[in-house]
Amino acid sequence: MLSASRMEAFSDGVFSIAATLLVLDIALHPPGTPLEQFWRAWPAYLGYVVSFMTIGAAWLVHSALTDRLDRADSLLLRINLVLLLVVGFLPFPTKLVAEALHDTTGERVFVTVYGLTLLAIRVLGWALDAYARREHLYTREEGDEELHAERRDFLPVVLVYVLAIAIGLALPSVAVALYFGLAVFLVLPFRDLRRLFRRA
Amino acid sequence: MLSASRMEAFSDGVFSIAATLLVLDIALHPPGTPLEQFWRAWPAYLGYVVSFMTIGAAWLVHSALTDRLDRADSLLLRINLVLLLVVGFLPFPTKLVAEALHDTTGERVFVTVYGLTLLAIRVLGWALDAYARREHLYTREEGDEELHAERRDFLPVVLVYVLAIAIGLALPSVAVALYFGLAVFLVLPFRDLRRLFRRA
Amino acid sequence: MLSASRMEAFSDGVFSIAATLLVLDIALHPPGTPLEQFWRAWPAYLGYVVSFMTIGAAWLVHSALTDRLDRADSLLLRINLVLLLVVGFLPFPTKLVAEALHDTTGERVFVTVYGLTLLAIRVLGWALDAYARREHLYTREEGDEELHAERRDFLPVVLVYVLAIAIGLALPSVAVALYFGLAVFLVLPFRDLRRLFRRA
Amino acid sequence: MLSASRMEAFSDGVFSIAATLLVLDIALHPPGTPLEQFWRAWPAYLGYVVSFMTIGAAWLVHSALTDRLDRADSLLLRINLVLLLVVGFLPFPTKLVAEALHDTTGERVFVTVYGLTLLAIRVLGWALDAYARREHLYTREEGDEELHAERRDFLPVVLVYVLAIAIGLALPSVAVALYFGLAVFLVLPFRDLRRLFRRA
Repeated sequence: MLSASRMEAFSDGVFSIAATLLVLDIALHPPGTPLEQFWRAWPAYLGYVVSFMTIGAAWLVHSALTDRLDRADSLLLRINLVLLLVVGFLPFPTKLVAEALHDTTGERVFVTVYGLTLLAIRVLGWALDAYARREHLYTREEGDEELHAERRDFLPVVLVYVLAIAIGLALPSVAVALYFGLAVFLVLPFRDLRRLFRRA
Repeated sequence: MLSASRMEAFSDGVFSIAATLLVLDIALHPPGTPLEQFWRAWPAYLGYVVSFMTIGAAWLVHSALTDRLDRADSLLLRINLVLLLVVGFLPFPTKLVAEALHDTTGERVFVTVYGLTLLAIRVLGWALDAYARREHLYTREEGDEELHAERRDFLPVVLVYVLAIAIGLALPSVAVALYFGLAVFLVLPFRDLRRLFRRA
Repeated sequence: MLSASRMEAFSDGVFSIAATLLVLDIALHPPGTPLEQFWRAWPAYLGYVVSFMTIGAAWLVHSALTDRLDRADSLLLRINLVLLLVVGFLPFPTKLVAEALHDTTGERVFVTVYGLTLLAIRVLGWALDAYARREHLYTREEGDEELHAERRDFLPVVLVYVLAIAIGLALPSVAVALYFGLAVFLVLPFRDLRRLFRRA
Repeated sequence: MLSASRMEAFSDGVFSIAATLLVLDIALHPPGTPLEQFWRAWPAYLGYVVSFMTIGAAWLVHSALTDRLDRADSLLLRINLVLLLVVGFLPFPTKLVAEALHDTTGERVFVTVYGLTLLAIRVLGWALDAYARREHLYTREEGDEELHAERRDFLPVVLVYVLAIAIGLALPSVAVALYFGLAVFLVLPFRDLRRLFRRA
């Protein structure tokens, strides 16, 4: 039994460091003029945005979750450690994908590993919430919009990930486009934007 | 809806990590004696100081802002994620500029990318504040000196950035000097220094 | 005398950064197809998991400990600094082991250094707890399951580490398997899993 | 005007990241057997310990200081930013020294830069405390043992640093030994150890 605040501090640390380390995977490679090199690195920028946004989406769910925790029991702390292990691993497949789209020999392998890592982050985030609900670790049952959206969209999101991973075995670029779409979907607040536009 | 404290923890993580990762971009390059190599790396030191101070200035505004937040709604959390995405990206253009000033072939391209990143950080910080004000997310309306200065100086600062980016297309070194000047201006507390000197 | 919260913030920072920096030690090396290179890097994945989980286990004990601290005296802060010094050092021997299993010339030396680092983390975590108890720095004496398990298993765990280090002088791969087993043992919550399975 | 807690979070982030990034400066270099390479890297280990302990000592003073702050005014936040800029810079001269002791051509230059950085950290930590006292930003005037020790030892410590920097211009190894001695002195709690031994 631990107060939830320490779990938050360590988790926020891993989330923010993993997100910020992603920048180290971006580099320019000769040959070409500086401008050509800069444009040719677009897969690295894409990988940065997809991974940063996937970590951001996982953090949104995670912080909504721990914000409502009454306490953290020892099994929850362990599920959380496994989630953080995978989040901390993400910069590696991100780098592989950025380089694979660059020289194409390893595209299929690396895009598959990347997709499996993104999927694992989603599933482990869901497992954390499912366990906390089952063991009645939440203080406030009324929930939260982030958690509601996460629970409602869990199966469709997993299905799209599985589909993208399968497609990636044949068409890796399409899979990366799907991962980008998913990251945008998970972070974009459609309801809020609609509300804002309606008011405007 | 999330308590503002989790947004602070994740944001402070990204701000402090991005600032500290900047040091990894500093390296000495042969040829020359150690002392020559050390002096020749001055663009890397300059880039470190400009980027660290720009992140520091953004953090000053950000912390004054979140310190006054009553709660964080889902759109504010997303604008914040985009701001952090750009802050986390900053070590990459900083490295490009440090190396560009070194071998000069890519100067114009890289200095432009750098300026655009610095400008994006300023604009997104302002957007965060503008959204929070519009949606009445602040507890205390009386404001704060950092926020007041940020709002008052927003347009002039953006104009200088745009001007510097335009100048950088022809004279990249002048643009870097302007970015340095802006970083110093944003961090130096003129009013406090005047008060201190008057007392002394 | 310091409030325990600052010691927590700095420690959580070092724990989470050391754990997340481990990913930088993972890299693919030619020759071979991408798939072959990916599989051949398994020692790097193993090292990542063992080190992440060892840091995770140390953090579990550390946070249970500081969560119960009334205050931190100056000697406790120093023991803590030495623990953090060793935790921050762990990415280096992890990298050595990942590369040693790869080209085998340095296996024995590097696996020994790795084992000594893991052992030092365990012993320093225990010393922190022993000192806090002796100096009556805890608020709540009733303890906690993490701390109880840590105290109960301390001698056996140290013995297995010493044994593994000795074995590693002749059979480095066996030692790494033992370190993996220990990391799993320290993190797996056997009692909770039994409880869960009994209920199911 | 800002609550001191945000200044703490950002500062603890920079302190802990700078300390943990130091490990990235440690690497083995051919030629030689693994064991020879491992021993030959001793300047890197020494640099790691000296820099980690210097950051640790600065953090001890900094946390004692902010723990007693009532509020942070804008000039204090800026002095703090400059301190963090230097702390975040420390991994670079640490790396230079580790490599300089290795191939000796740049020893004098790099050891001097290293010493100046260590000195700047000490002076800026002192300036933070001096400013906070002068502007009556502390809640509790009675002080703290860390702060008392810092104030009492400030002049002697600065003198030893200046002396070591001067010596390093001729005998760089002696200067590094002095920096090590100073780091040990600043972190070792002599009074507490004496108390412990007397009781035993």
